[in-house]
Amino acid sequence: MPDVVFTVDQSRSMRDQKAPGHNRWHPDIPAAITVRPGSEIRVECREWTDGQIGDNDSADDVRDVDLSVTHMLSGPIAVEGARPGDLLVVDILDLGPVPQGPGDPARGPAPGQGWGYTGVFARDNGGGFLTDRFPGACKAIWDFHGQQATSRHIPGVRFTGITHPGLFGTAPSAELLARWNRREQALIDTDPGRVPPLALPPSPGGTLAGPLTGSALEQVGRQGARTVPARENGGNHDIKNFTRGARVFYPVHVPGALLSGGDLHFSQGDGEITFCGAIEMGGFVDLHLDLIPGGMQTYGVTTNPVFLPGNVEPRHSEFLSFIGISVDHDGDVNHYNDATLAYRNACLNAIAYLETFGYSPEQAYLLLGAAPVEGRVSGVVDIPNACCSLYLPTAIFEFDIRPTAEGPRRADRGRCAVSS
Amino acid sequence: MPDVVFTVDQSRSMRDQKAPGHNRWHPDIPAAITVRPGSEIRVECREWTDGQIGDNDSADDVRDVDLSVTHMLSGPIAVEGARPGDLLVVDILDLGPVPQGPGDPARGPAPGQGWGYTGVFARDNGGGFLTDRFPGACKAIWDFHGQQATSRHIPGVRFTGITHPGLFGTAPSAELLARWNRREQALIDTDPGRVPPLALPPSPGGTLAGPLTGSALEQVGRQGARTVPARENGGNHDIKNFTRGARVFYPVHVPGALLSGGDLHFSQGDGEITFCGAIEMGGFVDLHLDLIPGGMQTYGVTTNPVFLPGNVEPRHSEFLSFIGISVDHDGDVNHYNDATLAYRNACLNAIAYLETFGYSPEQAYLLLGAAPVEGRVSGVVDIPNACCSLYLPTAIFEFDIRPTAEGPRRADRGRCAVSS
Amino acid sequence: MPDVVFTVDQSRSMRDQKAPGHNRWHPDIPAAITVRPGSEIRVECREWTDGQIGDNDSADDVRDVDLSVTHMLSGPIAVEGARPGDLLVVDILDLGPVPQGPGDPARGPAPGQGWGYTGVFARDNGGGFLTDRFPGACKAIWDFHGQQATSRHIPGVRFTGITHPGLFGTAPSAELLARWNRREQALIDTDPGRVPPLALPPSPGGTLAGPLTGSALEQVGRQGARTVPARENGGNHDIKNFTRGARVFYPVHVPGALLSGGDLHFSQGDGEITFCGAIEMGGFVDLHLDLIPGGMQTYGVTTNPVFLPGNVEPRHSEFLSFIGISVDHDGDVNHYNDATLAYRNACLNAIAYLETFGYSPEQAYLLLGAAPVEGRVSGVVDIPNACCSLYLPTAIFEFDIRPTAEGPRRADRGRCAVSS
Amino acid sequence: MPDVVFTVDQSRSMRDQKAPGHNRWHPDIPAAITVRPGSEIRVECREWTDGQIGDNDSADDVRDVDLSVTHMLSGPIAVEGARPGDLLVVDILDLGPVPQGPGDPARGPAPGQGWGYTGVFARDNGGGFLTDRFPGACKAIWDFHGQQATSRHIPGVRFTGITHPGLFGTAPSAELLARWNRREQALIDTDPGRVPPLALPPSPGGTLAGPLTGSALEQVGRQGARTVPARENGGNHDIKNFTRGARVFYPVHVPGALLSGGDLHFSQGDGEITFCGAIEMGGFVDLHLDLIPGGMQTYGVTTNPVFLPGNVEPRHSEFLSFIGISVDHDGDVNHYNDATLAYRNACLNAIAYLETFGYSPEQAYLLLGAAPVEGRVSGVVDIPNACCSLYLPTAIFEFDIRPTAEGPRRADRGRCAVSS
Repeated sequence: MPDVVFTVDQSRSMRDQKAPGHNRWHPDIPAAITVRPGSEIRVECREWTDGQIGDNDSADDVRDVDLSVTHMLSGPIAVEGARPGDLLVVDILDLGPVPQGPGDPARGPAPGQGWGYTGVFARDNGGGFLTDRFPGACKAIWDFHGQQATSRHIPGVRFTGITHPGLFGTAPSAELLARWNRREQALIDTDPGRVPPLALPPSPGGTLAGPLTGSALEQVGRQGARTVPARENGGNHDIKNFTRGARVFYPVHVPGALLSGGDLHFSQGDGEITFCGAIEMGGFVDLHLDLIPGGMQTYGVTTNPVFLPGNVEPRHSEFLSFIGISVDHDGDVNHYNDATLAYRNACLNAIAYLETFGYSPEQAYLLLGAAPVEGRVSGVVDIPNACCSLYLPTAIFEFDIRPTAEGPRRADRGRCAVSS
Repeated sequence: MPDVVFTVDQSRSMRDQKAPGHNRWHPDIPAAITVRPGSEIRVECREWTDGQIGDNDSADDVRDVDLSVTHMLSGPIAVEGARPGDLLVVDILDLGPVPQGPGDPARGPAPGQGWGYTGVFARDNGGGFLTDRFPGACKAIWDFHGQQATSRHIPGVRFTGITHPGLFGTAPSAELLARWNRREQALIDTDPGRVPPLALPPSPGGTLAGPLTGSALEQVGRQGARTVPARENGGNHDIKNFTRGARVFYPVHVPGALLSGGDLHFSQGDGEITFCGAIEMGGFVDLHLDLIPGGMQTYGVTTNPVFLPGNVEPRHSEFLSFIGISVDHDGDVNHYNDATLAYRNACLNAIAYLETFGYSPEQAYLLLGAAPVEGRVSGVVDIPNACCSLYLPTAIFEFDIRPTAEGPRRADRGRCAVSS
Repeated sequence: MPDVVFTVDQSRSMRDQKAPGHNRWHPDIPAAITVRPGSEIRVECREWTDGQIGDNDSADDVRDVDLSVTHMLSGPIAVEGARPGDLLVVDILDLGPVPQGPGDPARGPAPGQGWGYTGVFARDNGGGFLTDRFPGACKAIWDFHGQQATSRHIPGVRFTGITHPGLFGTAPSAELLARWNRREQALIDTDPGRVPPLALPPSPGGTLAGPLTGSALEQVGRQGARTVPARENGGNHDIKNFTRGARVFYPVHVPGALLSGGDLHFSQGDGEITFCGAIEMGGFVDLHLDLIPGGMQTYGVTTNPVFLPGNVEPRHSEFLSFIGISVDHDGDVNHYNDATLAYRNACLNAIAYLETFGYSPEQAYLLLGAAPVEGRVSGVVDIPNACCSLYLPTAIFEFDIRPTAEGPRRADRGRCAVSS
Repeated sequence: MPDVVFTVDQSRSMRDQKAPGHNRWHPDIPAAITVRPGSEIRVECREWTDGQIGDNDSADDVRDVDLSVTHMLSGPIAVEGARPGDLLVVDILDLGPVPQGPGDPARGPAPGQGWGYTGVFARDNGGGFLTDRFPGACKAIWDFHGQQATSRHIPGVRFTGITHPGLFGTAPSAELLARWNRREQALIDTDPGRVPPLALPPSPGGTLAGPLTGSALEQVGRQGARTVPARENGGNHDIKNFTRGARVFYPVHVPGALLSGGDLHFSQGDGEITFCGAIEMGGFVDLHLDLIPGGMQTYGVTTNPVFLPGNVEPRHSEFLSFIGISVDHDGDVNHYNDATLAYRNACLNAIAYLETFGYSPEQAYLLLGAAPVEGRVSGVVDIPNACCSLYLPTAIFEFDIRPTAEGPRRADRGRCAVSS
């Protein structure tokens, strides 16, 4: 096991750790530790909401979640010698839920201690990809069995997770941060009262910036970019293939690179469609770090990281696939090559299909967020209809979900957790 | 070999065949043949432009292509007993380029006779996904070696194609056709002078409607939907996984289902990003047809087909992957969860990367359209940035394309065909 | 399509073709054609018994087959410049059953014309891996559906074939041929009366040696090695992964290399356990030929070829696997690390298992020979028990074959063809 | 994490644990714990030699190893209600090296504490598959990096392990044990002085039988079967696909089933050809246990277990494959369909090939035992030559190992540990 360079006590808030982590992107947040290129390290991580969600059968905690504190990240980790323009090479050696010692119970209170959850946020507190169809909060608890997961809230499925960190990234330079804030505010200004909002501006309330306090903390709160979207520093990619064996090449924007991350997912489908759609957990990630000096220019990397995906994801050879096009079918309104809308329709088509087997729409939605489904951009040139497809592995179901002349095997499939 | 129910003589235009096929969607185009459920059939297909593109080193033919005649489809094939509301089950048993007989030359003049092509349309005649960056026409010719392809215009790559039909679909009902025309015209009306256009309205010029002539042909020309986009009848999905072994369940909208298709692709990357981005060819496809009566309601299928993808696509275990987010980086303008823009950026990032190895941007663009790249919708909820990723199999290159401390293996990579 | 350098008329015996092929290994059989390194060629092949087996429901033809004429090979093909010590690089570009022209019927009388067969030889005429358990002849006819096969004699299964040539090889030198004859005769001499025999010595009866006649033919008959086993020239490997996309490096023993082959298999399980266990057919194979001069010494290749397997075999992700060890369980006799016996027991265990679902032992035996099962050498050092395992893809069955608390889904599974 | 039902302190011998485990198969060894069907449990395991091999650069410890104490197994675990004739269903949920707590060093003295080893035994103390070619002891130490391994003794390779337990099994009945002893003694009696021996008879010296002492221990020593081979109770299969996600169905021979196991392997190639060929380690395995009452008869399971292999093994899509046939090429002696000899030749051919890149024969031999190579029984009916093949994933090498016209990339590849 590599040295633990960032420790988390899962019984405490991220604010109360020895090294407290942070929840905004800002170059002034000081490194928690400095390591050499070539190091192998372990980073412990807190679940992204800092433990607000419980192992219970009500979605009230999801409905009432305080999103100003998200994502709770571990880091920053400085890499000796890293300079702006370099590529930071990050190998994901291993990762998983919270490791348990000899005396630990099989299941603890924090997400990652034997369980995780998938949530659908309420429309007026977070929202999600299909929030107009699913405006209320709901939740599914998942039990971990080695690398497999089952849920009492979605019976009849069992699958191996493609475990990955939702979020890792380097610190932005002050200049890059200013550009982010400028362009995102410009977007917000196009519809400032929208619910859910178009983007999240810096927000001092809830800000955590490592050991910073006073005016230094205030400045990070005023300027620091929220961690929700992916940007030029990496960030919240939610790419499920950042799994064991993956190698990611991050752009370096500040001296030392300042790598931070967390938001571990036991499993997730492409798109993480419920917003909190992965199986969320705390845990650990083992990394190997290295540098390609000047790599950004050498390889023409100007915006986002490049990566080699992991090679131990669960193998599936049979999928039932759903298609969507960029038409709003409710009003029969045609949009122009809109892949987001096309993927949305593919998801809605999958949900409608799964309903014929007895699942509620909420169960189906939660499942598509959490299971290892693949989302493909199939066509983006056949005007006016973009075409996206969703690949659902048939082996995750305990029954045959393929269409046949006999019709679907309808059954009582229970219910997920909803809010009161 | 199954019975050939639709024959094509590759030395003639689709208009001059025994059964002439069609290039518009309209319920009045009469069936070319009627088969029983359970039949295995062979359908011969003409390359989608009806042979306008030649095996040469100039892209003038692509620049000047007449798109009013596309896509040239084989069919319609009526299935006995099919009724609106059924699902038409189509197994893709086999498919490939034009079969050659004992006396045939190894290479013929029509696409599919030992070769195929990938084209980038000019901005003012077709356009494509990256048309503002690539406004001129260009082209690559691909040579077929069994299931593998190479190109004199893009040296250093060799790959096995995921061969598939770009386009198959059932006939729309009159009511459905009217809805298509209404909603697409409404889109066009939002920016009628746009180049390239937002959508293509019915266009009598160039219309082919099987044996119809006179006023019947005129009516199809006036009303018939263009074949470019995918819609509720299936259509031009350009989903590369409709390959050998795939099973597609098409909605049936008219008695007899009236299945038609063509636009065969020797290979294609997800998105078919150059518009004419697959390796285009004529050839054949062997199908098994069956019905699930009432299957649309039984399985909740209201818009697009569902499918089981094929299981003999080339296996790749290592990819170099590129990420894009929904930011216009030229002007630093942020768009809201726009997966189309995110995938566009992933493609641009891949092109910039390949340039560091010596490929021209045009070569890289053509390659991404033709090779078996995967396009993934990675994140669509992390406001405001959708995140898409492009997976490029490293094994298709004769050299190592992974980022290393040594830097890229730059070389003279020749040039693709351009227009004069 | 590459040039056809070796033509077969499937309505005639191999003896009556324009270029008659051969059925013995001997350096004096003259090349049928000479090609250059770098050539792409098509070779047409006759089914290995020269058409003795029919598309019917009796195994009498298998029982009475004349094995003195096997295998009927296409070739030899000389490669310009090839010299002893070189490696002959053979890319398998494509292969398949007999191509059919426009006027051909969907099914013809020769194996490969829409169908193939799997046979179990009678003990006293060929035998097989389990011949003491299965002393009588039996047979299954397989129907081709694109790349998939079904059988009226083994209902309930459908699978995609890993199509491959059972046999390709270069000509032996006179010296190498003499060694083969010497060592195989020495083996035969240890038990000359054994039924089935330990090996097959040269046998003039039935010999075909291309155009040779008279004393030249007689000499080939007296000296020519039978084509049954694999040897230092390649030969009858029956390796199912010599499929589309494979590259094989054959040792060259005579000037020109003199490549010959045939024995095409639509599908086969590892081990080809029924002897004639693949789905046997005539057809075609497209090859690209090249040379690595002096490659044998350069790469330490002294005996058998090396190869890169093909990359388009059907993907399976779930297998039911059977284990065998080197114990003769009938008499409880322990053998020392005998992998052959271990694999035999794995096969017997699989057969016993499939019987619980209603298959006859013969059906199960035929299925294991033909379906894409994998045979693994799992342990060969844990004295005294070698351990082999057989991986049966679960997806080839129309029903669930995994062990469950409910027990097997037993049904009437029909019967295979037997002898009268 | 499941409850730890069998604990191992890696700083002590298996003899000195709280529950001491055992190293013979005998029905009288009492259960260490009893669990219910449906339980999820963690079993901690000691490396198979009980820690005799060290993290150093000499193979003297391998040369002098005391094999009378092997394999040190954890268990027995009794399952409530299990009766002879049942199938014990064992899901392998997770497994890995020794888990480390917060204060633990990154690397400890016991195998499994950050490292493992592969050994070649000396001919006169254990031997191995190629012991006549490799009569001396040698060793390679492997460093763990998450799921990947590298070795200072075999530079230039890095691979993801297919981690698995080499050995798990149920207790034999007294009757079954007597049969084992009878048949193995009969084999030994055919050549009692052979070095290495044909099989290992019961051997009181070194016997450990859980808490048993005195005459009860003596009886286990006199009668207990050695754990080396696989038998009807499962046992030392060394099947690498018993990995995460696998489900094994073990025959039950005594009330309570009495499951025991250990011999964890970080990685292993098919055949485990060096005897101690896997990457050996201590660690943990998480299991889910269940029963199919009467399952042996219901599913026709009379000898060995059946299993569903795991689905998260590392994916490889390109292999360089070696072939062997059942000929002793040294003396040119032909054996009859001997798959063991054929696989041996495939291994020797791979070793000779790797030597041309600069590896010593010992390094190549150690690598083939440890890396995820596949061993296939390709042909067992083509008399007289069985044909086996060895698939070596090309991606485990840092350089291209495919044959090319340029020749192999020869380099100084260091050396493995040898004995003094």
